[in-house]
Amino acid sequence: MRKAFFTLAFLFSVLCAKAEDGHSLWLRYNQDVRHVDITVNRDSRTINLAVEELQKGWKGMPVSLVVAKPNKKQKSKNGKVQQLSPDAFTIETVNKAKQEKHIKISSQTDAGILYGVFHLLRLQQTGKLPADMSWFKVSESPVYQHRILNHWDNLDGTVERGYAGHSIFWHDNEAEPTFTDDDAKLWAEYGRANASVGINGTVVNNVNASPKMLSKPYIDHVCKIADVLRPYGMKVYISINFSSPKELGGLPTSDPLNADVKKWWKKKADEIYKLIPDFGGFLVKANSEGLPGPQDFGRTHADGANMLADVLKPHGGIVMWRAFVYKSDDSDRAKQAYQEFMPLDGQFRDNVIIQIKNGPIDFQPREPFSPLFGALKKTQTMIEFQITQEYLGHSFQLCYLAPMWQECLMSDTYQKGEGTTIARVTDGKTYPQKYTAIAGVANVGRDTNWCGHIFAQSNWYAFGRLAWNCNLDSKDIAEEWIAQTFCTDKEFVQKVESIMMDSREAVVNYMMPLGLHHLFAWTHHYGPEPWCEIPGARADWLPSYYHKASEDGIGFDRSSKGTNAVSQYHEPLSTQFDNVSTCPDEYLLWFHHLPWDYKMQNGETLWSALCHKYDKGVKQVRNYQVVWDGLEKYVDTDRFKHVQSKLRRQAHDAVWWRDACLLYFQQYSKMPLPSDVERPVKDLDEYKQIKFRWSHHN
Amino acid sequence: MRKAFFTLAFLFSVLCAKAEDGHSLWLRYNQDVRHVDITVNRDSRTINLAVEELQKGWKGMPVSLVVAKPNKKQKSKNGKVQQLSPDAFTIETVNKAKQEKHIKISSQTDAGILYGVFHLLRLQQTGKLPADMSWFKVSESPVYQHRILNHWDNLDGTVERGYAGHSIFWHDNEAEPTFTDDDAKLWAEYGRANASVGINGTVVNNVNASPKMLSKPYIDHVCKIADVLRPYGMKVYISINFSSPKELGGLPTSDPLNADVKKWWKKKADEIYKLIPDFGGFLVKANSEGLPGPQDFGRTHADGANMLADVLKPHGGIVMWRAFVYKSDDSDRAKQAYQEFMPLDGQFRDNVIIQIKNGPIDFQPREPFSPLFGALKKTQTMIEFQITQEYLGHSFQLCYLAPMWQECLMSDTYQKGEGTTIARVTDGKTYPQKYTAIAGVANVGRDTNWCGHIFAQSNWYAFGRLAWNCNLDSKDIAEEWIAQTFCTDKEFVQKVESIMMDSREAVVNYMMPLGLHHLFAWTHHYGPEPWCEIPGARADWLPSYYHKASEDGIGFDRSSKGTNAVSQYHEPLSTQFDNVSTCPDEYLLWFHHLPWDYKMQNGETLWSALCHKYDKGVKQVRNYQVVWDGLEKYVDTDRFKHVQSKLRRQAHDAVWWRDACLLYFQQYSKMPLPSDVERPVKDLDEYKQIKFRWSHHN
Repeated sequence: MRKAFFTLAFLFSVLCAKAEDGHSLWLRYNQDVRHVDITVNRDSRTINLAVEELQKGWKGMPVSLVVAKPNKKQKSKNGKVQQLSPDAFTIETVNKAKQEKHIKISSQTDAGILYGVFHLLRLQQTGKLPADMSWFKVSESPVYQHRILNHWDNLDGTVERGYAGHSIFWHDNEAEPTFTDDDAKLWAEYGRANASVGINGTVVNNVNASPKMLSKPYIDHVCKIADVLRPYGMKVYISINFSSPKELGGLPTSDPLNADVKKWWKKKADEIYKLIPDFGGFLVKANSEGLPGPQDFGRTHADGANMLADVLKPHGGIVMWRAFVYKSDDSDRAKQAYQEFMPLDGQFRDNVIIQIKNGPIDFQPREPFSPLFGALKKTQTMIEFQITQEYLGHSFQLCYLAPMWQECLMSDTYQKGEGTTIARVTDGKTYPQKYTAIAGVANVGRDTNWCGHIFAQSNWYAFGRLAWNCNLDSKDIAEEWIAQTFCTDKEFVQKVESIMMDSREAVVNYMMPLGLHHLFAWTHHYGPEPWCEIPGARADWLPSYYHKASEDGIGFDRSSKGTNAVSQYHEPLSTQFDNVSTCPDEYLLWFHHLPWDYKMQNGETLWSALCHKYDKGVKQVRNYQVVWDGLEKYVDTDRFKHVQSKLRRQAHDAVWWRDACLLYFQQYSKMPLPSDVERPVKDLDEYKQIKFRWSHHN
Repeated sequence: MRKAFFTLAFLFSVLCAKAEDGHSLWLRYNQDVRHVDITVNRDSRTINLAVEELQKGWKGMPVSLVVAKPNKKQKSKNGKVQQLSPDAFTIETVNKAKQEKHIKISSQTDAGILYGVFHLLRLQQTGKLPADMSWFKVSESPVYQHRILNHWDNLDGTVERGYAGHSIFWHDNEAEPTFTDDDAKLWAEYGRANASVGINGTVVNNVNASPKMLSKPYIDHVCKIADVLRPYGMKVYISINFSSPKELGGLPTSDPLNADVKKWWKKKADEIYKLIPDFGGFLVKANSEGLPGPQDFGRTHADGANMLADVLKPHGGIVMWRAFVYKSDDSDRAKQAYQEFMPLDGQFRDNVIIQIKNGPIDFQPREPFSPLFGALKKTQTMIEFQITQEYLGHSFQLCYLAPMWQECLMSDTYQKGEGTTIARVTDGKTYPQKYTAIAGVANVGRDTNWCGHIFAQSNWYAFGRLAWNCNLDSKDIAEEWIAQTFCTDKEFVQKVESIMMDSREAVVNYMMPLGLHHLFAWTHHYGPEPWCEIPGARADWLPSYYHKASEDGIGFDRSSKGTNAVSQYHEPLSTQFDNVSTCPDEYLLWFHHLPWDYKMQNGETLWSALCHKYDKGVKQVRNYQVVWDGLEKYVDTDRFKHVQSKLRRQAHDAVWWRDACLLYFQQYSKMPLPSDVERPVKDLDEYKQIKFRWSHHN
């Protein structure tokens, strides 16, 4: 390890004062001009990036960056040799007599060094470094190996459920994908932002994938993306269309057990890996919402996934196979993924991971966790969160999602008794997984501020942080993000943190409290349309399928007397959810259909409780407005007004939600609003006539 | 007086249950089937109507209706013979031995009998009759002789500032006016409603008058209206266009001193009176807002008014000459009516009355009274109120106007020392007036419920009641109206009365508190447009002329340091208004331009006070929603939902007002909203883009 160190010294230039347009994200170092001594034991693009980062942001002792295999003698407390993640790093102050006192960042990999540098800078930016650094030491190792963004970016440059402008990866080019120097610059900035929070993979196209994705020009384009992102420790992945052999390859079938089909895929994999040796693998949405899949040929999801896994295996690639499948039949949609995948448990190759959305329906403001997490035991699973706010206010609304994700990750599945949380059934600790992973549907677009809403950046940030360490507290993550994005002033951080931590529950309150779900308008999923009726539409795409409101009550009976979806959960959850008196309020109408005058625990009627929840949501948002207005002195004008304006929209639309839902349900409850609930400001018919302008959608 | 009485006996039929569409106004008798004995000493259409009314609504002792000259021996307390109004009536229980015990309603006139009958019924409907009627006696005499509605109805059937459908008098007929039996029925219902509150005159066309009004077909049409309304004690009047001799008569001029012009008018008057012997006279808007007038020929308002008065005099007609005149010059618009008319004091004929709007500008939510009321001493004056809510929310908003009118009527002009209220300078008591009158711009249209908003009916009602007795309390009038229109349940009456009594101040609060005025949008006068700029527009038609908001403050300096409009008021008002520390808060920015940080009496800044007022207005309306919702059990579904829906709109638009004004002014104040003020829900630019749909305007 005693290699020759070489020293770099730099004079920092003052950061140009630029308009606070949010483009810098949470990477807003604001340091004085100064020298910093940095030594490295290795030269690589990644190490260079780490050095540059320190030059931009570090203010303190000299730093040495050391890439080295771990000391074999290192053992954990229980005597076992630690299986250290290649991304793990240690930051420690070196006090040895012969050396200049300095901070050493060490890792097995270049990427680990980069993560360590960002971690050191984060500690500094958030004021978490001790005044006396003499004995400082911190080690970090990520929980999940693969921390991946899923871009639902279409090859024509639009983004499905994207609310921050067009795709950063794709332009609307008729013939074949093109890119400019500006694109490469943007991709590098994107890579840097991801590296700063430990995200190490990206799926660059929509799960609703075009076969065209596997054509040569598109693979070439992915290669260019990969080249830019590689120094930031990021692998690229693509979503594939299961019919590609037929649609693109001209084969007569795409049957996964067909020899020509297998051959086609093998050739395609070889082609990709020739260009991109560290290519990550495939993400597959199959036999879901009209997309092709193995079932089209009488094969199972396992047949399809394994065939793809086999062609990727020699190259080290993985298949992330989505469990988001449901049919329009009599069965409860919430049960179908479980019913589909449980019989296949144990049949998947070791480089297949089943990618499961947090809830059994579809990224609603609140769902109980998907029971698949507590069920599959011989199949690798990973969680899919949605960072883009498809159902939580798009980029119009401030909604910090980390508490929702944490709620899910910490949910106890009771798979192996108490304490088998979702975090622990996906991290390989409960059942061994060769591959562990976590995915988040990205909220990134070409908007200057990346995410449309400054506060939506916090969700990108928090996803990365939780993917690295799912045991972090969402409150701490919020504070980190605030301090880096805005300032470290205590009053500001505390007040903004209180807004953020409250914000997801507010959205639940004014959109879908007490377990209600999918009251959204057809297509846009922004505003309320509990009344939505589309002639000929699939029943399970209509809100009434979910709320089942009528004069006799409201809610979806998934108890043992209803669809018995509760039976998919382990005990004691199954009984707890099944029994209306023990079912948590937040899942009440998810699991039960109850009369309007049902008495809640606190004695009020269900109708009254519903009204109070909706109204509370509005009041919560109005409070954010007041709090934010009081923080003007801490924020630059541009970002202050940006957030102020967004909050105005949110307060307005929260009222829209509250009024539209309460007026709609009141037709059935026939009960008056409680006197302390603010009255609707429009009539139901007027709300029904609201047409949502969807122009912000790319 | 001992004429032969004849007895009428009737069997009442149960009132058909009809949908509560509001068409019955406050005349909703709800009595059991029964006989009632009614004797009369005279036969006339008016007496027949009085009898019919008793048959429909009276439940009690027999009634005799006695038309008779007053007993000459009747004297008032101070010994003078009372000058009893012909409309005066007495209701008393007759207990004489030889007669059957009964209630006698007596008056000098048939109309007086009808008013007495309606009064008796009103007392019954509102529960004000004593249980023991043995010694009951009440006498009433109206304060003003002429109690007139001004219809701003155009001959094409539209209504200027009408928000309840098209004109009840005019259809859109190319050639000449037509009418149907339905029209006659509607006019009779209109006459009955007016008679029930003592309104005895109507001007059937807009003050922005067409010369066509004086053509034969239109006079014929007015004759038909007069024939229908006459039995209800109502006279008809018309608005004339001063250029009629030229425009209609083909004369080379309309100069009032021209002999041919005078001759033309005399002939026209003769023509009208030949058809309508009790025709009331002319209402004239001259040299105002582009309309022709005597000044076009170098003559004065007196020249013009007197010429018309001379031709009407032989027939007993009067001229109501409007003081609503202002020019677009450097002078303060608020001062101009005074400046124009004061030099003419004493020059008007005794059948001319100067019709003065309550405030010096134009029917704003709040204005100080017009100083002309405290100034003209040798000229007859009358007050013009606006019943239609041009500036107070159209027919969308619940705004009970009686408190505003009472505020004006009870304003002390100090014309002859303390106590010379506006009521007393227009009722002929302070300075003798041969004619006394009061006018209200009608809010009536062809909407089924007459006024667009059920609660707008209360303003029609209250205008009539105040015109009869300007000393009535607006609260008592509200209670009367509620009891007759809805029900007499105490809780309901009290709660609705509290809404009504609060409602005008709420409008002031959320539209234009602290003396602000005319922040309205160009043309429609519904929503806020303090920012309004129309290239080339008259300065005094733009909000900035009135609010004068800039970084140095807000308000119109009409103090002695400014336009000195305060000098048009008698002392002590002049000094009180002039001195910022004694000027009432409600007129503060009417008379003063003050810095944003001006300290109010309660210590808060002007900006803060303004914010609190606007926000309070919104809260007031929201409270009406809650209160109204709690009253559902007392109201039929149709009217309950009607009012509920209107209140929703009002709450919505109150927020529009508050936010738009505060965001606009905040650009200049550069001060934050107080923390207890609800935040705007849209940005200023969004508010600026709101286009008001004006389709309800006829």
